[in-house]
Amino acid sequence: MKKLAVGIDIGGNNTVYGLVDIDGKIVADSSFRTMKYQKFDLFLEALVHGLQLLQESVKEETELIGIGFGAPCGNYYTGNIEHAANLKIWGEVLPVAEKLSVYYPNLPVVITNDANAAAIGEMLYGAAKGMKNFTVITLGTGLGSGIVINGELLYGHDGFAGEFGHIIVSPNGRECGCGRCGCLETYASGSGIVRTVYKLLADHRDPSELKAISFNELTGEMITKAAENGDPVAIEAFAHTGLYLGRALADLVAITAPEAIFLFGGLADAGKYIFEPTREQMEANMLSFWKGKVKLLPSGLENKNAAVLGAAALAWKKFNEQQ
Amino acid sequence: MKKLAVGIDIGGNNTVYGLVDIDGKIVADSSFRTMKYQKFDLFLEALVHGLQLLQESVKEETELIGIGFGAPCGNYYTGNIEHAANLKIWGEVLPVAEKLSVYYPNLPVVITNDANAAAIGEMLYGAAKGMKNFTVITLGTGLGSGIVINGELLYGHDGFAGEFGHIIVSPNGRECGCGRCGCLETYASGSGIVRTVYKLLADHRDPSELKAISFNELTGEMITKAAENGDPVAIEAFAHTGLYLGRALADLVAITAPEAIFLFGGLADAGKYIFEPTREQMEANMLSFWKGKVKLLPSGLENKNAAVLGAAALAWKKFNEQQ
Repeated sequence: MKKLAVGIDIGGNNTVYGLVDIDGKIVADSSFRTMKYQKFDLFLEALVHGLQLLQESVKEETELIGIGFGAPCGNYYTGNIEHAANLKIWGEVLPVAEKLSVYYPNLPVVITNDANAAAIGEMLYGAAKGMKNFTVITLGTGLGSGIVINGELLYGHDGFAGEFGHIIVSPNGRECGCGRCGCLETYASGSGIVRTVYKLLADHRDPSELKAISFNELTGEMITKAAENGDPVAIEAFAHTGLYLGRALADLVAITAPEAIFLFGGLADAGKYIFEPTREQMEANMLSFWKGKVKLLPSGLENKNAAVLGAAALAWKKFNEQQ
Repeated sequence: MKKLAVGIDIGGNNTVYGLVDIDGKIVADSSFRTMKYQKFDLFLEALVHGLQLLQESVKEETELIGIGFGAPCGNYYTGNIEHAANLKIWGEVLPVAEKLSVYYPNLPVVITNDANAAAIGEMLYGAAKGMKNFTVITLGTGLGSGIVINGELLYGHDGFAGEFGHIIVSPNGRECGCGRCGCLETYASGSGIVRTVYKLLADHRDPSELKAISFNELTGEMITKAAENGDPVAIEAFAHTGLYLGRALADLVAITAPEAIFLFGGLADAGKYIFEPTREQMEANMLSFWKGKVKLLPSGLENKNAAVLGAAALAWKKFNEQQ
């Protein structure tokens, strides 16, 4: 009987889910648009139905060992999604673990946020294998972080630790979706670098292919392409992003002393354009005994299925600990 | 036979040591000037002799269960003091655990920095009893931090986590003893508030009793007294200190989500003058779901013997875990 973990990642746009074996191989996976369902109960019903179809699609006999769930504002302690801005249509508190246990009464359900899931995925299947102290920074629309201390995720007192995207790097700086100003993710994220490009276009007169693109249409991926084409504004925008990110990572090192920091997600795919300025600023701002010692690395997970892998890794980690 | 732990705290000025029972009662203690001894070996010899005298002074029969050692740059993993600026005369790396084991071959020796020791002291004997996620901030000449995650000290990959005094709160700000600029402890510490008073005296014309005191002589204690007398510069200096400290603590909450943060040490004795502006800034800068929930509290340890208590607590914690 082949043992498989369920990995589920809810995003504001898509929900992806899959069955993952102990070696991190995704045996079957699928996805649908999250907001196709107006109610949380209908969403869950569709998800469970989808999982049944996946399980049936596997040729061998299978046994599920647990369910891992990555979601914005997923709380490890309560098993709920709590106050997730882009799932508010379903309610303020969504009791994921409780409701799933009706469908799967004998399976443990582990839920946490997507960045934490990515960190456990990195530890089990990625570039953090064998590491006990590291951080994964997810650079998507926003900035998330999964901080691993001594082999365990840092959840904190209430389950919401790791809000590194919301440390304030510029008092009275850019308005953030959280209602405050100057949060790291308003500078160092996919949406942050778009704002930086617009700031540079406002302040300077350099030629740039990005002048042809509206704020709504501009993405981190386009800025990466422009940088690869030698666009000076795009390259400068990455330098600004790295300035804020590198400084903030130096502070994170002072607090948590990790072996390595991994950059994951869309903006991390910009390679040297994001890594070089970030590493330079991180090195410049660390205490001397850390200089040259803390690794800044790309994630070892493929972006495409990392969300499912990370979520399933939560379930595998729990299963392994109970054996 | 009365079981006792040895607690030792080396400071640049004084070394204090004592024998502590399981309830946190200091049964006997003593101290001497650290730099009375030009060599580390001579220092250790004197310390061991002092401990023998202490043990003989106890009326009942005693059994030592372990040695806890708080020291600047004390490394939990290696058992060494590494690169401590104010102990450099003895060498760069001081193998404390190894050398003590010659005198006490059967006793476990636990070493870490003084702020970490204070945090374990707070957990065993102070106001953090029963808490699993909290931070102790020591406000002495500098700023130290002991961060407890899930009941364990945060040591990080190399043993040096918790350098919260060296997060950079003002790029290109005040020169720090670490060789960089703008570290938190150049603003929020005993030496930091002295600099803030001098800055305020330079910039403004308010009357102040502090104008009569030289930079070398001015202490945090004097500034506290002046604030209690209604001195406007002293009160403003505490407000500035709280501004930097409160903002930084809000960032620490975003990363570690603690139940409480304790302020400990000389500057914390200023009571409302330091707590009120710090709390106000911390509240103003936290994400909304943490507002009003994370406690900012004074330490529950008496300052006088806290160093010995904290160091002994390291040994008791280890002993308790092994039973």
